Amino acid sequence: MSADVLALLRDALGERVDTRPASLHDARADKSGHAATGTPLAVVHAASVDDVQATLRIATATRTPVVTRGAGTGLAGGANAGGGEIALSVRDMTRILEVRADDLIAVVEPGILNGDLNAALAAQGLWWAPDPASRAISTVGGNIATGAGGLLCAKYGVVRDAVLGVDLVLADGRLLHLGHRSVKGVTGLDLTSLIIGSEGTLGVVVGATLKLRRAVPGEVRTLAATFPDVRTAAVASAAVTASGVQPAIMELMDAASLAAVHRLLQLPAPTPGAAQLTIQTDGPAAATEAEAIADVLRGVGGTVAVAADAAEGERLLTVRRSMHPAMETLGTSLIEDVSVPRSALPAMFDEIARVEREHGLAIPTVAHAGDGNLHPNFVFAGPDVPPEVWAAADDLFRAALRLGGTLTGEHGVGVLKRRWLVDELGEDQWELQRGIQRVFDPLGIMNPGKVFAP
Amino acid sequence: MSADVLALLRDALGERVDTRPASLHDARADKSGHAATGTPLAVVHAASVDDVQATLRIATATRTPVVTRGAGTGLAGGANAGGGEIALSVRDMTRILEVRADDLIAVVEPGILNGDLNAALAAQGLWWAPDPASRAISTVGGNIATGAGGLLCAKYGVVRDAVLGVDLVLADGRLLHLGHRSVKGVTGLDLTSLIIGSEGTLGVVVGATLKLRRAVPGEVRTLAATFPDVRTAAVASAAVTASGVQPAIMELMDAASLAAVHRLLQLPAPTPGAAQLTIQTDGPAAATEAEAIADVLRGVGGTVAVAADAAEGERLLTVRRSMHPAMETLGTSLIEDVSVPRSALPAMFDEIARVEREHGLAIPTVAHAGDGNLHPNFVFAGPDVPPEVWAAADDLFRAALRLGGTLTGEHGVGVLKRRWLVDELGEDQWELQRGIQRVFDPLGIMNPGKVFAP
Ligand SMILES: Cc1cc2nc3c(=O)[nH]c(=O)nc-3n(C[C@H](O)[C@H](O)[C@H](O)COP(=O)(O)OP(=O)(O)OC[C@H]3O[C@@H](n4cnc5c(N)ncnc54)[C@H](O)[C@@H]3O)c2cc1C
Ligand SMILES: Cc1cc2nc3c(=O)[nH]c(=O)nc-3n(C[C@H](O)[C@H](O)[C@H](O)COP(=O)(O)OP(=O)(O)OC[C@H]3O[C@@H](n4cnc5c(N)ncnc54)[C@H](O)[C@@H]3O)c2cc1C
Repeated sequence: MSADVLALLRDALGERVDTRPASLHDARADKSGHAATGTPLAVVHAASVDDVQATLRIATATRTPVVTRGAGTGLAGGANAGGGEIALSVRDMTRILEVRADDLIAVVEPGILNGDLNAALAAQGLWWAPDPASRAISTVGGNIATGAGGLLCAKYGVVRDAVLGVDLVLADGRLLHLGHRSVKGVTGLDLTSLIIGSEGTLGVVVGATLKLRRAVPGEVRTLAATFPDVRTAAVASAAVTASGVQPAIMELMDAASLAAVHRLLQLPAPTPGAAQLTIQTDGPAAATEAEAIADVLRGVGGTVAVAADAAEGERLLTVRRSMHPAMETLGTSLIEDVSVPRSALPAMFDEIARVEREHGLAIPTVAHAGDGNLHPNFVFAGPDVPPEVWAAADDLFRAALRLGGTLTGEHGVGVLKRRWLVDELGEDQWELQRGIQRVFDPLGIMNPGKVFAP
Repeated sequence: MSADVLALLRDALGERVDTRPASLHDARADKSGHAATGTPLAVVHAASVDDVQATLRIATATRTPVVTRGAGTGLAGGANAGGGEIALSVRDMTRILEVRADDLIAVVEPGILNGDLNAALAAQGLWWAPDPASRAISTVGGNIATGAGGLLCAKYGVVRDAVLGVDLVLADGRLLHLGHRSVKGVTGLDLTSLIIGSEGTLGVVVGATLKLRRAVPGEVRTLAATFPDVRTAAVASAAVTASGVQPAIMELMDAASLAAVHRLLQLPAPTPGAAQLTIQTDGPAAATEAEAIADVLRGVGGTVAVAADAAEGERLLTVRRSMHPAMETLGTSLIEDVSVPRSALPAMFDEIARVEREHGLAIPTVAHAGDGNLHPNFVFAGPDVPPEVWAAADDLFRAALRLGGTLTGEHGVGVLKRRWLVDELGEDQWELQRGIQRVFDPLGIMNPGKVFAP
């Protein structure tokens, strides 16, 4: 049977079918630290929409599961392909098909890296706003399939706000054009939005019409503020939000995160217990906004340092951007991703402190404080998440839900969070979502076991 | 059978079941000029989520179609209830359940008028941005169900950008909570977005968590520019968009619209053939932006008048806001709603001129020029759209699709545009959307004959 599938794939796709052990091994894992059981049949490196359609026709004919893959930087195990599955990589589909400065749209293939697209757009004074910290290494298709967020999204929105249409290949190989090129449109159901964040369970995104912005004029201003403890830092970030000044970036790092990064970057050790907010303003009013924010921060007890220039600003942000590598120096980490209403940020940090205490674990945490999205990191030894870590994570998820929040602000459900999905959605909504998934994929071959698996 | 349904409704809902002839008559029509065939069984005036659930349980048990209704200001016939149907009005569910200035969210019932909500929010310096020209008379639930746009949406977004969650009663009476209170969240499929613009075909919106904005500080600036013809006005609006300055409002009126409004308001007749752009800037940079825009407009041959103060600015905008009443003085009007990429606005006006010529009709047209959404008006005598008007409209729709546009930018499909839906979506996507609709409503009792009817 799998021999048949391989033969069919090779017939149709020739060299694009890759069964080298190293390739199969790589396709088993993303950056979540979790890998699939077993080894996929093959990695298909699609170079065109036709390649994707051919692969899916064979998958449907042979009832073979397909796991779509962008750059494999996901943090939920969504792109992990295991035994009996086809790993379908769209990473080679990297063309920018069209950029229209007058309409502020771009039409692209899914495999282009976010950073590469933005480098090309910058030359025309344009910009696709979604900016996951992984922008240099993740694909636009992956950003769409996960509904990625980033540092700038409190001010400039998430992927959902920046996509006008997607081209989707269905499980049976048919190609659909969803959405439109006009900025407005309400013809029928909004399937474009439904695809955003669907993590490869509805079909393969083979093209996207993106909503661009013009590059923001003026110089950015960056400031960092330290606080005696993380709760005060969270209160300060809520005070900034409440002040009505909208920072472009507002990132929070707790004491453990800060200490780990300072160690990695060989900076002087921070004051024990101290937490930090790193804030950037942009646009024509960047300077006055930065001053207004500095005043708010000082008012709640922050020690504020304003960067003298852009280079120093970049150095301040580098501290935040080094969180992931810093955690890697400590062991394997499970990077969590709860999101709560902004006013609940201090309460969520209280809950994290409680979980640390009750479960006897350290949970270094950073947050996109401007939009209430926290990344608590569980660090452990060895490749598998130990049961006591899952127990603590479970406690944390339930706390986020109690505060009116959600399990995942931007990373998605994948395999790692599927068992909590029903807790957030409720049985009825879970069943309804599953029913919708089946309309797209009646045979259940699109990324089975991800998101909706019981 | 219908006697049974009525008896069941009366048992469960008592006085909320209204069968007065005038009420039944009113429920047959919205503001599209189109009315349903036959008379509905009853109008149920739901006052609570329980009332909605009770109505739908009876509807499911008796297989009775349900047409949800907000304020009935729709322009696509979506809320029109006919023979054998229950008209379910949520207009009495008007409570604001919660406003959180710190989280910038409000939780409301669906029947509150957009204008009433915004009056209450304004007292706290807050604002729900969607602003259909009908905001004083349309409901928030109706705005969500149609995916309404408005004058400000080029700068501040449409309904889709301003809703975090909805509570939905399904056809069988079950209540679902979709979305979340946090600004970010990607847990499972984005059903909130799917409900936006679903025109009562997926369930009844009984509550919504809205994303608010802070009131924009500073005074607005308003200017009007006249051009020798509509094409030049469209070129000018594209030039403004291309200049990178973002107006809050940019409305275009063609010569026939302008003449009709001037007549209605008893203003001096405009120069024959002249078209007009009315533009408003807001925020701290309103004055400098207005000047920059005035320069762009003069550069393409516009005669620009900048309003001296807010009162004069309001008078300039009143001309645009009087379009609907002005058309009513001419006869019955079919208000169309195509949307095209912004750069295609001049080409779309060429197409409208061609359709006028080839079909021998006048088509007064206004446009939300900032986002490429046009409202061509077909004016005729008597209550029914004559076949020659439909033929011209058909020609116009196809032109919009050829230009990369869509059938409906903000009014929805309803009954009036259902026969063109498949032309835009294609057979495969049409079937898929229909399949999704059936997952929500397996018996097909939610607004049957609307949107998806063949
Ligand atoms: C250091 C680091 C920092 C990160 N920071 C952020 C951050 O700030 N914000 C954030 O949101 N995420 C972040 N991430 C997570 C990750 O980068 C994002 O989820 C990203 O969007 C994944 O893109 P990818 O191309 O790597 O997708 P993959 O990992 O290859 O796939 C992710 C999911 O999308 C599906 N998929 C991928 N491409 C397609 C397609 N074309 N069609 C259909 N389905 C598809 C896959 O099946 C899988 O379920 C970070 C990751 C790392 C390692
Ligand atoms: C003068 C005038 C100007 C207008 N200007 C604009 C404009 O600028 N932009 C714009 O977008 N529209 C505009 N419209 C159209 C109309 O006002 C909008 O479509 C509005 O959103 C409809 O709201 P409503 O409460 O009147 O809904 P209704 O007309 O009662 O219903 C509209 C549709 O939504 C469904 N529906 C209503 N409430 C619910 C609910 N709670 N749950 C599920 N389904 C529901 C109905 O079944 C129907 O299909 C205008 C109309 C007029 C008369």
